[in-house]
Amino acid sequence: MLEHELTFRVLYSDTDKMGYMYYGRYAKYLEMGRVELLRTLGLSYKLMEDNGLIMPVLDLKLKYIKPLYYDEEIILKTKVTKRPSSRIHFEYELINPEGMLTTKAETTLVFVDRDTRKPCLIPDDFNQKVTLYFDEHLGEN
Amino acid sequence: MLEHELTFRVLYSDTDKMGYMYYGRYAKYLEMGRVELLRTLGLSYKLMEDNGLIMPVLDLKLKYIKPLYYDEEIILKTKVTKRPSSRIHFEYELINPEGMLTTKAETTLVFVDRDTRKPCLIPDDFNQKVTLYFDEHLGEN
Amino acid sequence: MLEHELTFRVLYSDTDKMGYMYYGRYAKYLEMGRVELLRTLGLSYKLMEDNGLIMPVLDLKLKYIKPLYYDEEIILKTKVTKRPSSRIHFEYELINPEGMLTTKAETTLVFVDRDTRKPCLIPDDFNQKVTLYFDEHLGEN
Amino acid sequence: MLEHELTFRVLYSDTDKMGYMYYGRYAKYLEMGRVELLRTLGLSYKLMEDNGLIMPVLDLKLKYIKPLYYDEEIILKTKVTKRPSSRIHFEYELINPEGMLTTKAETTLVFVDRDTRKPCLIPDDFNQKVTLYFDEHLGEN
Repeated sequence: MLEHELTFRVLYSDTDKMGYMYYGRYAKYLEMGRVELLRTLGLSYKLMEDNGLIMPVLDLKLKYIKPLYYDEEIILKTKVTKRPSSRIHFEYELINPEGMLTTKAETTLVFVDRDTRKPCLIPDDFNQKVTLYFDEHLGEN
Repeated sequence: MLEHELTFRVLYSDTDKMGYMYYGRYAKYLEMGRVELLRTLGLSYKLMEDNGLIMPVLDLKLKYIKPLYYDEEIILKTKVTKRPSSRIHFEYELINPEGMLTTKAETTLVFVDRDTRKPCLIPDDFNQKVTLYFDEHLGEN
Repeated sequence: MLEHELTFRVLYSDTDKMGYMYYGRYAKYLEMGRVELLRTLGLSYKLMEDNGLIMPVLDLKLKYIKPLYYDEEIILKTKVTKRPSSRIHFEYELINPEGMLTTKAETTLVFVDRDTRKPCLIPDDFNQKVTLYFDEHLGEN
Repeated sequence: MLEHELTFRVLYSDTDKMGYMYYGRYAKYLEMGRVELLRTLGLSYKLMEDNGLIMPVLDLKLKYIKPLYYDEEIILKTKVTKRPSSRIHFEYELINPEGMLTTKAETTLVFVDRDTRKPCLIPDDFNQKVTLYFDEHLGEN
């Protein structure tokens, strides 16, 4: 299983009048999680896009278990638990400073050719760095 | 079934460098849909909050079927299909100018006391205007 | 002077934990104001962009006189007070339900060729619909 | 002069269909800059707010000199150049990976009592850590 961890701080900009992080402000942090997971594998989403590939999001699920509050430092764990095919599935957990699981999320992204806007094959470097990981660690899953 | 329809236009602010509405920018339109559905029933979410009730979102599901593009006028259909209890579930559909279903979404909200931040009973006026609707239209569901 | 008026409602998404519209959430409404002003003149910013022109913002000034609150219906007045050249300057006023001026804003935009990303001449249709307006109404200014 | 420097990365969420960081997405990074400047002085904006003080923004000026692009690491410099009184003025500069000044910005904030929503005196700890700095470094300014 591929896993990555980063920390972000809840901005005033993220809060709403309830004092919680607004439910629509999580998506940008999930984006940060998956892009940084790829970066630690040596994959730049920017380079992939420059090379003609885009990865639109197909679905998003968010389960808000506990609120996030202003200025909290939140740990975001991002995981790829399944071998990617033409799609790649990410799972996320957000942990607050008290160590409590506050949020669970999932997204599925699809590989699309930037110019034709049709689904396309998983690119070679992505395949080597992500997909093969799952082949090599087959016994562990 | 309670149903409401509104139209919004995709802003430049909503787009990303792919040219699509960014996947994290849908949540505010869903908010608009459910608040306006309640308003057509004579319920003001603002008044409810002033009276001590908040309604945090428990979960969000979004299925991105087709992209939304800049300046498109989008029809947002919001529905309540089940009798609310301590929770209320909304379903959404977004239709583009070609009449195509572009997005499906669901949210569940919970009634919470603003001061104690504990789940609370569905308020009377809400009950009369939303819940009783389902009792009266039982045969139709 | 070219002038346009629209109404928007402050979303929960716009608020912050102070209960005010967050100071960074005004820009999208200013965008709405200037695009709708152009539309009433028969000009579509989308079409201009499809035809190879983009209009990046050069500067933004915002003066927050009074806060905007959740669910308020706000009147946004957008004005072009000066004949556009290679740049176009918009001024904005936001009026709350009590009729009070809450916000003043200004933006300057520049005409840029989408492909070369160099400043370019004001397009013909824009010229005819906006610039000539100022020639015709010279005495009024 | 008080000065602070941080780095952020332009998110996909920040971009618009022009491929630039949307002009309305800068404000949250400016917020980050001033809050982190205060934190390095031992001041927590969160604590100040918990203690009954809020700091609404009175004005914002942004000058967009060069665009910011997706995935760029941007240096944000935040400065307080004048001794704060009932107001505090911040200046900002954004530097791109080529070392170019891309953006200049300014904000003025005012000290307000959270409960009365009236302007109030600069709090003691703020005074000691920020204002006195200017007294001590008077000769340098």
